[in-house]
Amino acid sequence: MPLDQLQLIALKNFPLVAPGDDLGQLIMSALAGQHLVLEPGDVLVVAQKVLSKAENRFVELGQVEPSARARDLAIEVDKDPRVVELILRESNAVVRHCPGVLIVEHKLGYVMANAGIDASNIECGASGEQRVLLLPEAPDIFADQLRRQVVNIFGVNIGVIVNDSVGRAWRNGTVGLALGAAGLPALQDRRGESDLFGRTLEVTEVALADELASAAAIVQGEGDEGQPVVLVRGLDLAALGPKNYNSAAALLRPRERDLFR
Amino acid sequence: MPLDQLQLIALKNFPLVAPGDDLGQLIMSALAGQHLVLEPGDVLVVAQKVLSKAENRFVELGQVEPSARARDLAIEVDKDPRVVELILRESNAVVRHCPGVLIVEHKLGYVMANAGIDASNIECGASGEQRVLLLPEAPDIFADQLRRQVVNIFGVNIGVIVNDSVGRAWRNGTVGLALGAAGLPALQDRRGESDLFGRTLEVTEVALADELASAAAIVQGEGDEGQPVVLVRGLDLAALGPKNYNSAAALLRPRERDLFR
Repeated sequence: MPLDQLQLIALKNFPLVAPGDDLGQLIMSALAGQHLVLEPGDVLVVAQKVLSKAENRFVELGQVEPSARARDLAIEVDKDPRVVELILRESNAVVRHCPGVLIVEHKLGYVMANAGIDASNIECGASGEQRVLLLPEAPDIFADQLRRQVVNIFGVNIGVIVNDSVGRAWRNGTVGLALGAAGLPALQDRRGESDLFGRTLEVTEVALADELASAAAIVQGEGDEGQPVVLVRGLDLAALGPKNYNSAAALLRPRERDLFR
Repeated sequence: MPLDQLQLIALKNFPLVAPGDDLGQLIMSALAGQHLVLEPGDVLVVAQKVLSKAENRFVELGQVEPSARARDLAIEVDKDPRVVELILRESNAVVRHCPGVLIVEHKLGYVMANAGIDASNIECGASGEQRVLLLPEAPDIFADQLRRQVVNIFGVNIGVIVNDSVGRAWRNGTVGLALGAAGLPALQDRRGESDLFGRTLEVTEVALADELASAAAIVQGEGDEGQPVVLVRGLDLAALGPKNYNSAAALLRPRERDLFR
């Protein structure tokens, strides 16, 4: 059944998130404050940044001792050697670098600039120290925990995505991508389905979680909008089937099958 | 002002599109059939495939004489030499190739597999000949024409996007991307805006048209769903400002600034 309609609803007045906060609880409160009751097939899209904050993935740059490799690379890419040190610690490999650009394969498999380390929307530490924020430890696991929490409270199956705004090869500008996912086919396998004329589909794997992550990013905004959580309503998750359920890892192309690493 | 909500509405029962059809007229009829009146800030997302059909971008493979270069490359990539010939004619350069994969820079600047040439959802020609469908001639120009048509009829400013489902470096699965755009900042320049704490934003260019293209693709579907046009409602286009207005070309990273070509 094709979709008639999809709705993306911002959770308004979401509080600033601090280390140790129960993000699931904050989301439930924000839903209740807006009189939103979750329905089967709803998807909650949570910005990476608030999960990283809740997980206290802050690092004070003053505490970072750059290695020799980080110092050399920092000169080549014209970045703070302490930030480069953190990028290297967070990564499996450097994919490309040149002045101003450092693209790596993150430990969790994402190819992205600066290992996703972020210095915007981050308060200075209590000491006034300069801080940066690393990506969450395990976005897939958080997504699954939040999904279970919702099943327990509301008794409905939903999907959860953790998204981030990420740059790309070949094209300008960032788009929302899924770092973590649960409860939906992150990669929708349509092989074997037929087109309007009964022919087998050529393009047959759809990055559904990435498309939802991009859609939600439009509503989240990037700047001082403070809408880190978006509810997507209208998908028929049950009809989408269980293929590649429960992980955004399905979206990662293995290095040996990638022509651009 | 942050968005409260975004709605994606499928135009139902959209007719099969044939060469020479007035796509704008078909879209107006479909809107009327659903009692949808366009509002300021609405964005119409039109699947590339119906525009290509309306423009009669069909090619009968029997009419294609492959060059020596196409024949050699066809052996390397294990594809029909006539299709490879068309891919080369549609392209500026081959970016990568290996068995089963041929990634090119399309004449219009998009980096994509097979120059976007498609053999699904395409009827056989009158002669029963095998046909393929090339990308539209000029998606940006179509988008602007449809935008003007709407301004004339409804008297409201809207945005238009022509989208396609495209594969990517590093990640599995296709996502919707904007091949053409008009009436909205395809690449949203947020430099100079501040984050929640008054700091200048680090990630400052957002590929808004690509995010909208991905969002719409969820509702369009890929297979036998036949929902090529989606109405996006809820954006405040006037507030987004005029930067990079009127073209999806802003989304194309110039080759000399691209580390992956």
